[in-house]
Amino acid sequence: MNKLTKYCYGICFLISIAINILLSIYLGDPVYLEPFWMQNADDTAVMISGWHRMSYDYADNTMMSIELEKHIRKLHSVAGNAVTEGRYIVFGVGSSQLLSAAVYALSSETSSSPSKVLASAPFYSIYKDQTVFFNSKNFRFEGDANSWESNDFTNNMDVVEFVTSPNNPDGELKKSILEGKTIYDHAYYWPEFTPIPGPSDEDLMIFTLSKLTGHAGTRFGWVIIKDKNVYEKVLKDIYLADMGISKDTQLRVLKILKVATQEDGKPFFEFAYNKMRDRWERLTSVFSK
Amino acid sequence: MNKLTKYCYGICFLISIAINILLSIYLGDPVYLEPFWMQNADDTAVMISGWHRMSYDYADNTMMSIELEKHIRKLHSVAGNAVTEGRYIVFGVGSSQLLSAAVYALSSETSSSPSKVLASAPFYSIYKDQTVFFNSKNFRFEGDANSWESNDFTNNMDVVEFVTSPNNPDGELKKSILEGKTIYDHAYYWPEFTPIPGPSDEDLMIFTLSKLTGHAGTRFGWVIIKDKNVYEKVLKDIYLADMGISKDTQLRVLKILKVATQEDGKPFFEFAYNKMRDRWERLTSVFSK
Repeated sequence: MNKLTKYCYGICFLISIAINILLSIYLGDPVYLEPFWMQNADDTAVMISGWHRMSYDYADNTMMSIELEKHIRKLHSVAGNAVTEGRYIVFGVGSSQLLSAAVYALSSETSSSPSKVLASAPFYSIYKDQTVFFNSKNFRFEGDANSWESNDFTNNMDVVEFVTSPNNPDGELKKSILEGKTIYDHAYYWPEFTPIPGPSDEDLMIFTLSKLTGHAGTRFGWVIIKDKNVYEKVLKDIYLADMGISKDTQLRVLKILKVATQEDGKPFFEFAYNKMRDRWERLTSVFSK
Repeated sequence: MNKLTKYCYGICFLISIAINILLSIYLGDPVYLEPFWMQNADDTAVMISGWHRMSYDYADNTMMSIELEKHIRKLHSVAGNAVTEGRYIVFGVGSSQLLSAAVYALSSETSSSPSKVLASAPFYSIYKDQTVFFNSKNFRFEGDANSWESNDFTNNMDVVEFVTSPNNPDGELKKSILEGKTIYDHAYYWPEFTPIPGPSDEDLMIFTLSKLTGHAGTRFGWVIIKDKNVYEKVLKDIYLADMGISKDTQLRVLKILKVATQEDGKPFFEFAYNKMRDRWERLTSVFSK
């Protein structure tokens, strides 16, 4: 093996380590917060007896816990990352379920002119995979939003644009490119991942517990919606798809968010931020070598 | 008010009570089993610490608990209601999610000849509502299976037939009417609801915890599938829809099924059967008056 080949191998090795760290930060299981939840094991433990929470609905006939909804609003107020006052909230099985529910809610209802679903590349592959798989007459995935311009859309051909903000993996706080309906995927719009210039006030914003607190296995996400009509469509989608979210899951999320919002969220967000900073420093040091 | 009017009012009142009891047995929240779970509160209690089960997958890289799958197979062996040997199992958010996943998995993949989705009337409204709402190019809801005959289907026009067995509310052990692909909704095919003539061995059979143990709020169902190709399509649907089922839910279901299958299921199924018998006796007594 000559010197150049060795050098190339070395570079490739370092790049692969860097990519792995990057992936573990952004795409992998966010278990880096496990130590925080270990420190708060008592307060976040959930105990469910066999005869608890058996009904489809809560006592107030809702399928979503009002107490949990309150804590989600408190969380956003503490993090300063989203306007929730006067907004509707719907829970989903992870953000995954809400991504497709949002596409259905915003799309055309006439088969003759399906909505164009777009996202600026590179985008989270599930946007495309779901839209293609469910193969609805209401919408069609049309690829990269950058390939289109707003004035391409006339004759009632609606546009639904996915905006991942901050973007994965470059962290850019993206805005929509086209003048259509938007789905803001705010999975990483939390103080540990990005500076928060101010509360987001988009028409439809999706968040997920997986990235915020690391509880990916719990499968919990929520969407904040401005328009009542859109809210009702999303609610109908979730109801038809699976009659709402597990009550056990909702209880667990409530316990977790109670701890995450303690002392105005300071202990939780500081811990998460410091962990992320350490990871970036490791990453930068690998690149600088 | 004359005598005849009073008599009519009396009859209507009794019928409405009877219908309410019938609905509470079949359609309402199945909380009639709550006392059983109170008696087994210790064994069925679930304790989840804040740092447990955070990952998307289990340690073996699956999104479904192998231990839970084993207990589902044991449950069917104890109840004698379904063949599971050599069959595939997929978990869903209630049976609701699996009903639509099954339609997708069994339907045509070409938009030019969508599958006809049918069910013999009267049927569970969600069969229609889901199919209409998701409005896929792959299938179309075509109403009552009784209005069609097998030889209506030629030219590659596939049929997907929902068979609710036992049927709700008459309890009939229905079989498919047409020679198409079938989705057996076996929500009530348990010894407390119907005599079990033998283990069902259909190509695709859906069960739900809601009706079996009464834990509707937990949102857990499963499907037993013969064909590997169909299994992989259902799995893909669940993965794309929401990346699997909450790990907290899976743990809770495991605890519940461990108790339900104790002593070959005798304590659980006897309790459930006796409760159902009492309800039927109340119902019969109302009718006989």
